Amino acid sequence: MDLSDSGERQISWAARSMPVLTAIGERFAVERPLEGLRIAACLHVTAETAVLMGTLKAAGAEIALAASNPLSTQDDVAEALRAYGIAVHARAGVDLATYYRHIHQALDLGPDLVLDDGCDLVNILHTERTDLLAGVSGGCEETTTGIIRLRQMAAEKALTFPVVAVNDTRTKRMFDNRYGTGQSTLDGIMRATNIMLAGRTVVVAGFGFCGRGVAERAKGLGARVIVTEIDAVKALDATLQGYEVCPMERAATVGDLFITVTGNRDVIRAEHLAAMKDGAILANAGHFDVEIDVRALDELAHEVRRGVRPNTDEYVLPGGRKLLLLAEGRLVNLTAAEGHPAAVMDMSFSAHALAVEWLARERAQLAPGVYDVPEDIDHEVARLKLAATGIGIDVLTGEQQAYLHSWRAGS
Amino acid sequence: MDLSDSGERQISWAARSMPVLTAIGERFAVERPLEGLRIAACLHVTAETAVLMGTLKAAGAEIALAASNPLSTQDDVAEALRAYGIAVHARAGVDLATYYRHIHQALDLGPDLVLDDGCDLVNILHTERTDLLAGVSGGCEETTTGIIRLRQMAAEKALTFPVVAVNDTRTKRMFDNRYGTGQSTLDGIMRATNIMLAGRTVVVAGFGFCGRGVAERAKGLGARVIVTEIDAVKALDATLQGYEVCPMERAATVGDLFITVTGNRDVIRAEHLAAMKDGAILANAGHFDVEIDVRALDELAHEVRRGVRPNTDEYVLPGGRKLLLLAEGRLVNLTAAEGHPAAVMDMSFSAHALAVEWLARERAQLAPGVYDVPEDIDHEVARLKLAATGIGIDVLTGEQQAYLHSWRAGS
Amino acid sequence: MDLSDSGERQISWAARSMPVLTAIGERFAVERPLEGLRIAACLHVTAETAVLMGTLKAAGAEIALAASNPLSTQDDVAEALRAYGIAVHARAGVDLATYYRHIHQALDLGPDLVLDDGCDLVNILHTERTDLLAGVSGGCEETTTGIIRLRQMAAEKALTFPVVAVNDTRTKRMFDNRYGTGQSTLDGIMRATNIMLAGRTVVVAGFGFCGRGVAERAKGLGARVIVTEIDAVKALDATLQGYEVCPMERAATVGDLFITVTGNRDVIRAEHLAAMKDGAILANAGHFDVEIDVRALDELAHEVRRGVRPNTDEYVLPGGRKLLLLAEGRLVNLTAAEGHPAAVMDMSFSAHALAVEWLARERAQLAPGVYDVPEDIDHEVARLKLAATGIGIDVLTGEQQAYLHSWRAGS
Amino acid sequence: MDLSDSGERQISWAARSMPVLTAIGERFAVERPLEGLRIAACLHVTAETAVLMGTLKAAGAEIALAASNPLSTQDDVAEALRAYGIAVHARAGVDLATYYRHIHQALDLGPDLVLDDGCDLVNILHTERTDLLAGVSGGCEETTTGIIRLRQMAAEKALTFPVVAVNDTRTKRMFDNRYGTGQSTLDGIMRATNIMLAGRTVVVAGFGFCGRGVAERAKGLGARVIVTEIDAVKALDATLQGYEVCPMERAATVGDLFITVTGNRDVIRAEHLAAMKDGAILANAGHFDVEIDVRALDELAHEVRRGVRPNTDEYVLPGGRKLLLLAEGRLVNLTAAEGHPAAVMDMSFSAHALAVEWLARERAQLAPGVYDVPEDIDHEVARLKLAATGIGIDVLTGEQQAYLHSWRAGS
Repeated sequence: MDLSDSGERQISWAARSMPVLTAIGERFAVERPLEGLRIAACLHVTAETAVLMGTLKAAGAEIALAASNPLSTQDDVAEALRAYGIAVHARAGVDLATYYRHIHQALDLGPDLVLDDGCDLVNILHTERTDLLAGVSGGCEETTTGIIRLRQMAAEKALTFPVVAVNDTRTKRMFDNRYGTGQSTLDGIMRATNIMLAGRTVVVAGFGFCGRGVAERAKGLGARVIVTEIDAVKALDATLQGYEVCPMERAATVGDLFITVTGNRDVIRAEHLAAMKDGAILANAGHFDVEIDVRALDELAHEVRRGVRPNTDEYVLPGGRKLLLLAEGRLVNLTAAEGHPAAVMDMSFSAHALAVEWLARERAQLAPGVYDVPEDIDHEVARLKLAATGIGIDVLTGEQQAYLHSWRAGS
Repeated sequence: MDLSDSGERQISWAARSMPVLTAIGERFAVERPLEGLRIAACLHVTAETAVLMGTLKAAGAEIALAASNPLSTQDDVAEALRAYGIAVHARAGVDLATYYRHIHQALDLGPDLVLDDGCDLVNILHTERTDLLAGVSGGCEETTTGIIRLRQMAAEKALTFPVVAVNDTRTKRMFDNRYGTGQSTLDGIMRATNIMLAGRTVVVAGFGFCGRGVAERAKGLGARVIVTEIDAVKALDATLQGYEVCPMERAATVGDLFITVTGNRDVIRAEHLAAMKDGAILANAGHFDVEIDVRALDELAHEVRRGVRPNTDEYVLPGGRKLLLLAEGRLVNLTAAEGHPAAVMDMSFSAHALAVEWLARERAQLAPGVYDVPEDIDHEVARLKLAATGIGIDVLTGEQQAYLHSWRAGS
Repeated sequence: MDLSDSGERQISWAARSMPVLTAIGERFAVERPLEGLRIAACLHVTAETAVLMGTLKAAGAEIALAASNPLSTQDDVAEALRAYGIAVHARAGVDLATYYRHIHQALDLGPDLVLDDGCDLVNILHTERTDLLAGVSGGCEETTTGIIRLRQMAAEKALTFPVVAVNDTRTKRMFDNRYGTGQSTLDGIMRATNIMLAGRTVVVAGFGFCGRGVAERAKGLGARVIVTEIDAVKALDATLQGYEVCPMERAATVGDLFITVTGNRDVIRAEHLAAMKDGAILANAGHFDVEIDVRALDELAHEVRRGVRPNTDEYVLPGGRKLLLLAEGRLVNLTAAEGHPAAVMDMSFSAHALAVEWLARERAQLAPGVYDVPEDIDHEVARLKLAATGIGIDVLTGEQQAYLHSWRAGS
Repeated sequence: MDLSDSGERQISWAARSMPVLTAIGERFAVERPLEGLRIAACLHVTAETAVLMGTLKAAGAEIALAASNPLSTQDDVAEALRAYGIAVHARAGVDLATYYRHIHQALDLGPDLVLDDGCDLVNILHTERTDLLAGVSGGCEETTTGIIRLRQMAAEKALTFPVVAVNDTRTKRMFDNRYGTGQSTLDGIMRATNIMLAGRTVVVAGFGFCGRGVAERAKGLGARVIVTEIDAVKALDATLQGYEVCPMERAATVGDLFITVTGNRDVIRAEHLAAMKDGAILANAGHFDVEIDVRALDELAHEVRRGVRPNTDEYVLPGGRKLLLLAEGRLVNLTAAEGHPAAVMDMSFSAHALAVEWLARERAQLAPGVYDVPEDIDHEVARLKLAATGIGIDVLTGEQQAYLHSWRAGS
């Protein structure tokens, strides 16, 4: 089997769980809303991204794709995309110089629209490829980090076109943060350790959307879940959902498994590590690998046994107590499992595709700046998802619509 | 036992579940933030309201209280409040003229601040008692309905002072809508019917905060729950939480118990009633009694047997099929049970008390208009609630605070 | 409305939730399996019992009914039964002499079969009415207590006829112990206190069938549940279901609400009461009022305030700490709510009715002694229950039946 | 790393999750209850079995181990066991002749006791090695299949020594069937497909202990679960736990994922496959690969695409509909994941070790036949498990013990 076949196979597997994006692609193929537009994209080159690229191509766009991270590129998917007529400038494991050269190559297309994931492409455009700026009439950005950079650019009047922040919609939050992270985190922990969750005490640090998802799945697998928080409102909500809430200082002494998902650093620190039970397991589901203080763990341990299981290192502390660190404190769902299921990316990338369509239509009227995804798109994605799964909902009658807009008469 | 003793007993029972408001009251008694202020209030005269009145009095306010609804007044509570030095102008079951006279009597105090529940007092102030307007420097409004009227007044420049919309805070939504309505609705249904929930198919119409709470409690009592919705995003969320979602047309044919909680009218209509199984039970948890089309039910039935159980009427349809309507389609949690537990009102009224304190301090700087409850107050209420239940949470270290505010370096 | 009408109304309400017994009654009316038999019964005279009596009468039996407890007799139900042609010897609140006279009057019928609830009737039969023994060819006993007495009689060769222990079947355990007790216990607590369960720490003492049901419902209402046990296997099961398990000594210090359901005495003792938090609530769901040591509570308290809410007494301990005792430590589901829903009794009494039919058919072949309910009856009750709710299940194919009975070939 | 090191590493990983067996081993090392006994064992040669072997060796036994299945042998574990002084006669992938030769070699030890898994060793002993029978005074059998064969032997008076059926204890049922199978089945499905469970409709065929566990975990991961059954009592229990129950004929049309766990054949047949939705996924968690009629699936399909994901085959039906079969219909938890976690085997093998100790002590008094594991052992395993996890339970007071054994006085 050559690379392209293997890539094709992975793309079809992903597409199977992406009925919403597929439905959008079918409409795009008829309506051709991106006819004649050139799009330069800088995204993770994965099977799910490939389905997005196919959707935009079906809409009439010409596309050049660079990787937004050299480590995440799936070479066989890249090859399959090339076979499908999309210019892919990406290869797994390239050095930084090559990484940036690839972005330049994608920009060589002379794009009308740009898609970015972390703002590297847009940054190069505004610094090294300013000649192309006049042609660019809009963009989409996939990450929070990128949005922060873009808002700063907009505040300094440096941004020259409108950008849609596609990372933050109600459906994405639900699918991605709560259910995607929830399941894939526990999946990663099971694959790394094969431990039984039922009967374990699981400490979830952080009760935002992701933390809530992780807590629900741990509970759903039979664990007793303890939540730690720094925000009183979220902590209160956790108690109302039946979770035990306490400071990490206390949780550290009773937990069998700790999962950090806060977005902050040093959530599990030396003093907590020192208090843990023999055999406690540490996993991180937050974006960066700073939530568990791995350096402190290294300093506490007098011996480290790497790979006692795949993605599992054992730290032997003075006195013989052992702690197990999963995935070196990196995102356990990506490292030990496969990250978000394609069904999750279906929602995110569908919003992405509809945002591109909206941009193509509205860009002339939009001033430079950062825009939220229009709420209609969120509803459209949810609507298509329900339709794809054959789930019907009710429709307001005329009287009901009138009632909702009327002045209510009171009791 | 005289009225005042009986009222006192009820007030102490309520206070027992209101530790947050009690803690605020203790601080108020020391700091006296309302020293010398006159407050005219138009609220339901219940035991929980009495605790709020006590708190404001402890803060130094002079108070006159009228009822916001003649039916909800508990005469013994009113009597106990009078014994405590608060001027109460309210009596259960008065006619409309008396109801309005009571509001006038409360206004006779010449208030600095006003508290309203439905906007009747503020309305009278701006129409019949304009002489007092100059003295009023701020207000609070408890209901959505009232807020809508106030925003309209503000839009027409008719409102002469700032009003805080105390009905809508994150903690209130959680406590009141989700957990309060959730539990009390099922409680009301059990008291009315004594049916076993386990094994029943319960149809919950509407998946907003209240609907979610009702669905969770029905599921928690062992029912199979079906959700109906008109909003695709909410419907999708319901499916992701494991609920079956379908149109009412189909749900009507399989449900054993129907609970409406949508905020809309005619959610259960003639065509649904006609399709239901023999013995199906209908209950409403939405604010107004319009969600179940009771008129249609009356027309369908050839016989109605009132009170086959307390709060339960049986409608016999042609062919012998019987449907059971609870509480005549009115709010089942208020009619057949006792409405929100005091613990819920603790949160709402604590936000209320803190909003009054904030108004007293800030009113000079505030233009006329409708204001949200400051987010700090929400956190303060949650913080006090956790403290009252002895639940500790974590505190950010200096490094963590710095990290949260820094530009993140990326992967 | 006269007594008989009121009783009739209650009987029809109960019958509505008893479709299985109703279906059995319809078959009995056709097949008349008890034609000509005389039955003396000693049971609680409630609406559900009335439905059972009607079923047996429809089968052709002549019935005389005495109460098995003078306190539980519903006089209007008794009246309605009389109107229906059943000889009822029972009245609420009679003294002990009258209670026994009623049993004698029921026995005066000269029964072929007897139904008992606690073994009082059978006891009198074997001691004071031995003249009737020759005519009695079988019986049913409803309670564990009665079964223990009967086994002792059988062991001493004193029992002269076969008795079926109708209190213990798989369906009864499920319906009655787990789901019936579970729901009605929480229902009773909500009616007594109107507290919000979400966010509370509930300690459930005992994790048998009933305790499991109580724990599930408390969890389902949003509480954090802690289980105490004396049996290691049950304790382990509780942890595997995600509950925290610890000794009462520790649970006493953290619980907001305690529910005993162990079948043993002094589960909550002086040392536990002394350690509890201010405001802790105590409820019992076990059969006898010995699980909470109320005497110890009385001794600890320097003041008792009866009825701070219906069925709620407040004990003020030295130092001002207050504990709340529900229903004086008696069964909270019967005292503060309505005991088992009729749907539960439908299962128990259906097994009862089928056991009577089986006895009538088989009694000639049965030696004196205590018999379990034949397993077929359990299946028949479950089958009828599913049919009544319109739930279908699969049927084995011929190949499948053969496969199940074959020697399995191994891997 | 040589084989022995790799095996040692796996054994220590397993031992880490086997605290109960470890604690038993520590006691055995002191008490030496198997001093001088020779044990021939025929078991799966895995890391967990290795821990059991170590435990028995610590007790003083001399051991020879053959594989009970050539496919399950982990060669590195075998090597590590040899290094530890246990005679292992096993190698992965041997032919049948070698498989049986290995059993003979293990028997050459001249055992006092035998441990079996499927009855092959005991069978050879009674047919080809009858010379050794006189020396064998007891045995243990691990599987249901083996027990059935042994009971048949006992019935025919062919069995010459007592055998304990170690496969069936309360703790094993809980740990192994309900929680072990539950988690590992969903784990296997996630590894095979990476699908998101939340929002999917999962059909679980069979609601025995295993099916219940699978249903709970699917629900816990956010799925809507439908149960099919052939037993009315189990079906009723499923409805009382909130599951939808219907015949497979109907479930087939709505399921996204089907999991069979019935112990029967042809649970999903041609007529069901023909009715399924495009993209439906089929998995089996029952012991044998007969529950899904794979032959019928093969006949229906006009194309089969093997390995569209690891352990996932796609069957293309006429009209383009596709069904996905996991693990070729074999046990999905063993094939696509790692089978039961070591924590599960800790319970089973601890009962096993204690059963061997009991046999060693009691064998002289036991007639040939099949024996249940003494109930005490079950409690001891549960007790040790709780102790290992630091969970305390209550102890009966003298009064409580007396109360439990007294005649109850009644109401």
